[in-house]
Amino acid sequence: MIIRTLKEIRQSDRNVKSKGWESARLLLEDDAMGFSFHVTTMRAGSELKMHYKNHLESVMVLKGTGTIEDLATGETHDLKPGVLYALNENDEHIVRCETDILTACVFNPPVTGAEVHGEDGAYPAARPHVSAGSA
Amino acid sequence: MIIRTLKEIRQSDRNVKSKGWESARLLLEDDAMGFSFHVTTMRAGSELKMHYKNHLESVMVLKGTGTIEDLATGETHDLKPGVLYALNENDEHIVRCETDILTACVFNPPVTGAEVHGEDGAYPAARPHVSAGSA
Repeated sequence: MIIRTLKEIRQSDRNVKSKGWESARLLLEDDAMGFSFHVTTMRAGSELKMHYKNHLESVMVLKGTGTIEDLATGETHDLKPGVLYALNENDEHIVRCETDILTACVFNPPVTGAEVHGEDGAYPAARPHVSAGSA
Repeated sequence: MIIRTLKEIRQSDRNVKSKGWESARLLLEDDAMGFSFHVTTMRAGSELKMHYKNHLESVMVLKGTGTIEDLATGETHDLKPGVLYALNENDEHIVRCETDILTACVFNPPVTGAEVHGEDGAYPAARPHVSAGSA
């Protein structure tokens, strides 16, 4: 059994800050749960364009308000406590934060913690993908 | 992109109530995320013995207080907002609720929504497990 606290993770190297967001990674790939679990804050006033080409992600809003734009459809949805969005098609999207938005996020496959967002807004795959047609 | 609200799930058949707990399943197996995501409330005064033999589960406490006992080690840990426990070894455990405890739970493999807790405190596997030695 793993027991962790948000407080201890925030004081560790599992807490990552970047422009417009901060993420406390409570579970990463090396915890062998098959997913990673993060408590992520997106900062008031930020406009975050993201495209996780190699991961599926679900995000539950715990606090705060803003919007999410689905770039495939052009639709915009309100974000507020109790709203969940799931990027089941690796959906390219923009989150716009009216206030700080506190979220609980799950990634599959799990994030290793070593990724950085590429210029394309994606995390690289944890391992090279092998297509069905390759040797 | 999937957009769901806790309010709509609570009014649907994805909200399940049982003795001592209630669970709103925002993501289930048929959402094809590779995990399921539930907002679960364990009721004040409840003592819940659980053993998910076929699933790994992580639980983040959002509100409320209680304890979790790891039956393999006999250790007891406090539960309060910001504490996460992960049953990375299918750990048999007892949660004792001082107050209602509101949690965000992730299951791998995802729950289908059709499971019931067996007498052994487990959910059945979503699909029959095939051991490495079987034909």
